[in-house]
Amino acid sequence: MTVARRTGRERVPPHPDIRTITLQQVLEALVDPVRRHIVSELYRAREDVSCGTIELPVSKSTATHHFNVLREAGLIRQHYVGTSRMNALRRDEIDEAFPGLLQALVGR
Amino acid sequence: MTVARRTGRERVPPHPDIRTITLQQVLEALVDPVRRHIVSELYRAREDVSCGTIELPVSKSTATHHFNVLREAGLIRQHYVGTSRMNALRRDEIDEAFPGLLQALVGR
Repeated sequence: MTVARRTGRERVPPHPDIRTITLQQVLEALVDPVRRHIVSELYRAREDVSCGTIELPVSKSTATHHFNVLREAGLIRQHYVGTSRMNALRRDEIDEAFPGLLQALVGR
Repeated sequence: MTVARRTGRERVPPHPDIRTITLQQVLEALVDPVRRHIVSELYRAREDVSCGTIELPVSKSTATHHFNVLREAGLIRQHYVGTSRMNALRRDEIDEAFPGLLQALVGR
């Protein structure tokens, strides 16, 4: 795990090294339809997206939990800009570690 | 669901139409590592395999449960020959319904 760092107004929570992530962890993250929807939206966005931008059928705190699970599973990268938590899919890293998986799950 | 049929010494349990199966069902079946191992073995075998042929770290009744879950999720086709339950991956159908998924999950 990298250590959270703070640079000016940006704060970065800890992110795992993708090489430590197993297919099991990725599947446990992506078996949840809400989390798969988040990943699907980030897959299409191809840029950093704030948590509130993605419409989800859950409470804000539950949404935060889902984003945390995705970050801890190595699927998304997060950083704060002011009070907004920005999210991006770690697409290139995931594609290298698990070829074809994102395309098969959210690429259609 | 197709109806179980009995032809001579072969009996066939019910199998769902692959078109009724959702990605959610497939993922819930494949998130389990034992079931993913079964699918992986059938992927490599490319022929019908009896349940007992695949070594699993679970009891026989638990193994039977896992095979049933896979059949109900549209992933495997089963039939009995005498007292042996034979299994085959529904590979072509799955590849058509969920392109790239099997390759990404068990094809490495």
